[in-house]
Amino acid sequence: MTKTLNVELGDRSYPIYIGPACLGNDDLFSRHISSRKVMIVTNETVSPLYEAKLRAALKDFEVDCVVLPDGEQYKNWETLNLIFDALLQKKHSRKTTLIALGGGVVGDMTGFAAASYQRGVDFIQVPTTLLSQVDSSVGGKTGINHPLGKNMIGAFYQPNAVIIDTLTLNTLPPREVSAGLAEVIKYGLIRDADFFGWLEGNIQPLRQLDQASLTHAILTSCACKAAIVEEDETEGGVRAILNLGHTFGHAIETHQGYGNWLHGEAVGAGMVMAAQLSHSMQWLNDEALQRIVRVVEQSGLPIKGPSNMNEADYMALMSVDKKVLDGALRLVLLKRLGYALVTEEFSASALGDVLKTGGLQH
Amino acid sequence: MTKTLNVELGDRSYPIYIGPACLGNDDLFSRHISSRKVMIVTNETVSPLYEAKLRAALKDFEVDCVVLPDGEQYKNWETLNLIFDALLQKKHSRKTTLIALGGGVVGDMTGFAAASYQRGVDFIQVPTTLLSQVDSSVGGKTGINHPLGKNMIGAFYQPNAVIIDTLTLNTLPPREVSAGLAEVIKYGLIRDADFFGWLEGNIQPLRQLDQASLTHAILTSCACKAAIVEEDETEGGVRAILNLGHTFGHAIETHQGYGNWLHGEAVGAGMVMAAQLSHSMQWLNDEALQRIVRVVEQSGLPIKGPSNMNEADYMALMSVDKKVLDGALRLVLLKRLGYALVTEEFSASALGDVLKTGGLQH
Repeated sequence: MTKTLNVELGDRSYPIYIGPACLGNDDLFSRHISSRKVMIVTNETVSPLYEAKLRAALKDFEVDCVVLPDGEQYKNWETLNLIFDALLQKKHSRKTTLIALGGGVVGDMTGFAAASYQRGVDFIQVPTTLLSQVDSSVGGKTGINHPLGKNMIGAFYQPNAVIIDTLTLNTLPPREVSAGLAEVIKYGLIRDADFFGWLEGNIQPLRQLDQASLTHAILTSCACKAAIVEEDETEGGVRAILNLGHTFGHAIETHQGYGNWLHGEAVGAGMVMAAQLSHSMQWLNDEALQRIVRVVEQSGLPIKGPSNMNEADYMALMSVDKKVLDGALRLVLLKRLGYALVTEEFSASALGDVLKTGGLQH
Repeated sequence: MTKTLNVELGDRSYPIYIGPACLGNDDLFSRHISSRKVMIVTNETVSPLYEAKLRAALKDFEVDCVVLPDGEQYKNWETLNLIFDALLQKKHSRKTTLIALGGGVVGDMTGFAAASYQRGVDFIQVPTTLLSQVDSSVGGKTGINHPLGKNMIGAFYQPNAVIIDTLTLNTLPPREVSAGLAEVIKYGLIRDADFFGWLEGNIQPLRQLDQASLTHAILTSCACKAAIVEEDETEGGVRAILNLGHTFGHAIETHQGYGNWLHGEAVGAGMVMAAQLSHSMQWLNDEALQRIVRVVEQSGLPIKGPSNMNEADYMALMSVDKKVLDGALRLVLLKRLGYALVTEEFSASALGDVLKTGGLQH
């Protein structure tokens, strides 16, 4: 049942294994660990669920484990340092291997710890949330937050392998499954109209955690992201289309306070807003817009932003991106269903209309 | 008068400029800065001496500056974070350029800040000590200390350019000039017998800061290190010979407490110890050993370790390396004058004799 996708990045290439029960497959791990010692990094939520299973698959190695507090608010230097403390106290050398067991926060921090410990050691990702499986498995983005900005400190650093056990989604809250689906839908919208068509018929099996459907959706999402990242490893150009819905979404997350809207929920509403603006530009027709809205809605995601945000709120928060780019506001829009581009050529009044209605014209 | 050395590392290649008054050469800087904003990182000792001169060379850019406390004890996360704070407060984007103005500590921290800020920005090294000019200009090692170990957190990250103004050595304490010469001598010993011969006739002009002699010595040292690093960028093999004298030297530094013996002083005594052990192995003859001792001594460096260290002290501190390598103690020794190798094949009793006498048999 396990599918394999190779991410081709020259001497930084690595495989992603996807399927039910991968976590118990000791051969998958052994194949990618050249050290005697390994350090599992997980958090207090995931540890009771999956640490013992992972340790069983690592029976041939000397295993240490560090359990971090759970939550985006802990994605900081102090928590990262718990990993360094454990590595040094347990005398892990440059030859050690770190294994990230958890969601995006654990993966980002473990990846940055691996990039920085003794100037770089091996690491393996074992993402246990749908969002991290389809988003963090490819791209090599690692890092921590700074009080003055999210993900401001980090590295581009590739894992030795990513091992995705689709059965771990059985313990994921349904709201987080929906949030993960936002990123899955995104891949269909930006580069793969066929996949979008498949999703239209398979949202229910996905939400019900049908293993074959999940494996297909995760594999296709990772393959789509891999194709984009292979083209643009350090985010100079095309990679920006991965941010479809994210400029709107970040504004929502910031305005509401992190954690109140899940990232995927904000991206869901943001993608509808991007689709609506693309429709105003006459790039998407009525039918395409309706299909997009329907899939987002069926996934259990919001199709418009929070009712307490107005146009000025959006513009203030979105213009942070503007400053960073030393110029005009650039957005990811859909030239057609299955093809996104980054552009600053859109009608300001159409954008205003989208922001006024918060995403969906009734 | 300015000489240029290109360090060839594929798409991470960069030039090193060496000569008097480079710091005032605005063209050298402009050539390697593609941003509008730059951030100078320096320390409280170097800032009053050279910040104004550097700012004058950067008159075409928007310049911010962060001044760190001076000293190895500040090479930690808290100080590194002062750089991130300044970058974020002054709204520096991913397109910014950091300029490290100072010695090894400033260079290591600025390099790691550049490697990590928004997952990597440009940086230029302007090393102002002889040690950092010949040691940190090549190799891409950046990082900070952790309470449990030196340089434990960092990255391999290459600068856009290194600009070495040999006139900055005029303000360097003579003891630090001598300490820098230890690393210069090292390059002659490990890979370049001709350069060693040249050094034998030029130690006095170097200590008197003759600009042409300094330029030649720094250029040759950087070229030697570049050839080794080009062969082994991430320290898998041959690069270890750069540690000639360092295993003994680190033991001395640790035993005496950092700062009491300068790094270069400990390396000076350590190189004599390595030479003496190589002599015991009959790899070096009497004359070669004497030539090495003489050059180290003429440089104003100690030719034996501290009188309060005995064999057991050395062995206890040197065996840290042993643990790290999961095996026998490995040392860098001289197969002949101008050719070093890493080996665990030496007589334990000969090593014992060297450690008993602390470096030089009388």
